[in-house]
Amino acid sequence: MRVEGRQYRTVWIEGALVRMINQHLIPHRFEIVDLSDHRETARAIRDMVVRGAGAIGATAGYGMAQVALEAPAGGDWRSYLEQGAQTLQATRPTAQNLFYAVRRVLAAAQAGGTLAKARQAAVREAQAIADEDAAWCEAIGQHGAALIPDGARVLTHCNAGWLAFVDWGSALAPVYVAHRAGKRVFVYADETRPRSQGATLTAWELQGEGVPYAIIADNAAGHLMQRGEVDLVIVGSDRIAANGDVANKIGTYEKALCARAHGIPFYVAAPTSTIDMECPSGDRIPIEERDQDEVLYAHGRDDEGRLTRVRLAPAGAQARNPAFDVTPRDLVSGIITQRGLIAPDRLAELL
Amino acid sequence: MRVEGRQYRTVWIEGALVRMINQHLIPHRFEIVDLSDHRETARAIRDMVVRGAGAIGATAGYGMAQVALEAPAGGDWRSYLEQGAQTLQATRPTAQNLFYAVRRVLAAAQAGGTLAKARQAAVREAQAIADEDAAWCEAIGQHGAALIPDGARVLTHCNAGWLAFVDWGSALAPVYVAHRAGKRVFVYADETRPRSQGATLTAWELQGEGVPYAIIADNAAGHLMQRGEVDLVIVGSDRIAANGDVANKIGTYEKALCARAHGIPFYVAAPTSTIDMECPSGDRIPIEERDQDEVLYAHGRDDEGRLTRVRLAPAGAQARNPAFDVTPRDLVSGIITQRGLIAPDRLAELL
Repeated sequence: MRVEGRQYRTVWIEGALVRMINQHLIPHRFEIVDLSDHRETARAIRDMVVRGAGAIGATAGYGMAQVALEAPAGGDWRSYLEQGAQTLQATRPTAQNLFYAVRRVLAAAQAGGTLAKARQAAVREAQAIADEDAAWCEAIGQHGAALIPDGARVLTHCNAGWLAFVDWGSALAPVYVAHRAGKRVFVYADETRPRSQGATLTAWELQGEGVPYAIIADNAAGHLMQRGEVDLVIVGSDRIAANGDVANKIGTYEKALCARAHGIPFYVAAPTSTIDMECPSGDRIPIEERDQDEVLYAHGRDDEGRLTRVRLAPAGAQARNPAFDVTPRDLVSGIITQRGLIAPDRLAELL
Repeated sequence: MRVEGRQYRTVWIEGALVRMINQHLIPHRFEIVDLSDHRETARAIRDMVVRGAGAIGATAGYGMAQVALEAPAGGDWRSYLEQGAQTLQATRPTAQNLFYAVRRVLAAAQAGGTLAKARQAAVREAQAIADEDAAWCEAIGQHGAALIPDGARVLTHCNAGWLAFVDWGSALAPVYVAHRAGKRVFVYADETRPRSQGATLTAWELQGEGVPYAIIADNAAGHLMQRGEVDLVIVGSDRIAANGDVANKIGTYEKALCARAHGIPFYVAAPTSTIDMECPSGDRIPIEERDQDEVLYAHGRDDEGRLTRVRLAPAGAQARNPAFDVTPRDLVSGIITQRGLIAPDRLAELL
């Protein structure tokens, strides 16, 4: 999408250099980070310089391309590939796209036969994953826009916009397509504590596209639904189990329960790469428990313009910080994929 | 309750001086604020130096005592009383206790006949309201503790602890009574954005009483319930309509929906002064919409120890900030009052 008049993707590769938008600094600063080897790339995933299902997947794919480019010409390049894959897979436990991309690039490289061919195949496969992600998200936007009536008020949670993918996004792509087509769309962006991706990333994206929106405290979604101020909910997903259960940012499940209580459609937008057919149901999806400081502090820009953090809680306070939750398929009205809208209990037909 | 070894109430009066704990500074600093006339007291309510249903009520009662003490001896003291009452009532729209206390002190003063008697009656009535609040909350603690099994994990939202009342609190009083009686109790404290009363006030209170707890993002409550980690929910209330609908801090409704989905008891703890029999149902309770900066910023202590704020959102961002929501009575397992547990649809029997 466009930033300050220029077209950007969230992450891309130039030679052996992986480059990405530093999502830690959004919305306060726009900076590109350069990652010169796969360990730096792995660290960027783990530290959430890049986050979001598709963007993590594309980054991990590029990271695997770096592994192939780094592999020792004289040495055991095959086990170097496998070790690199392990390093990249150990960064975040929940996002299916990460495992999908690492496995896919690894398989392409391993099929190469020689290291030179493995390198070529790895770079090509990583680029294909990123390009597919962008194309799939645009298709999700087309399919999803048909579900947004003119004048609709859409609630979204966290950031499943273009920053969470290579381009376009999943949950926000339908909003962008509808808005560009001239429909009136208003977005309620859940702040999404503890990391505030809604207040920071989603708000920044919507502002960039000129879509009218309001940030709300996560607590306010149920109230707005009760007052009839939300017409539909669209969220993204980090992993969809074979039975249609959906893992997504913590709080998604609460919004799904609220939507159900008010008969409001609750859509999940995700490319098919998010679906994990080897995971039978949501209770088998590992839920990352992150550092409690994310809950005890808030990060932002102080009145002098410095990026800093403030501690909310008393000294010695304890916190729990599960980063994702699982929404049972019964609460999901439909899954918007690049191949169209599908009922959550019919995923097998898609693959 | 005890702070640094000394017994405190949230608010009290000394002569014509209203004194209160500055809740803006908790948990980072403990300071007492002195308010020398009713306009300063009104401002402290409006700016939330004091907040919480019972504490607002007691403060407003003391504010009315100040009005009587300030009333001009030679002049029209009766209309001064009425104007003062209006000033105090215009501070916050939702909390029933505020209107209850102002009306009660005003009526006592007006019945005085002479200004001297009005002053005496106003001070006495204001003190009675504060004393009753403390006694009622202790009784709520006794009744509520019976609902907490040994080893229970209690979820609470916002702060309905002793800082929200004159002493003891409503939702937390049962926890304190159970804990002091030797029961094992663990509390999940919802952070409660946008003002973070859970992460600040509730955490500070629980730490002071030695009750084990964890702060969670508001988004995490549904997930923890789904995983079987919450045994019951206790929240406070700012106003209870005659039919049993409950207004409380924004987000309470979401937690009630989550509790219902998992068959978890959802109790509301409140003195009968919170019940507004003139308000037939929850949709008639005015919902305060506060400044959007509360959502766009977070307040806390920076790494150098300064109390400051950070902006989360991009420049130019918009926010919506409803401060309360209404939980329909069907989602409420029972209301814990100073007179015992009562079903929400049977309030008329209580009064």
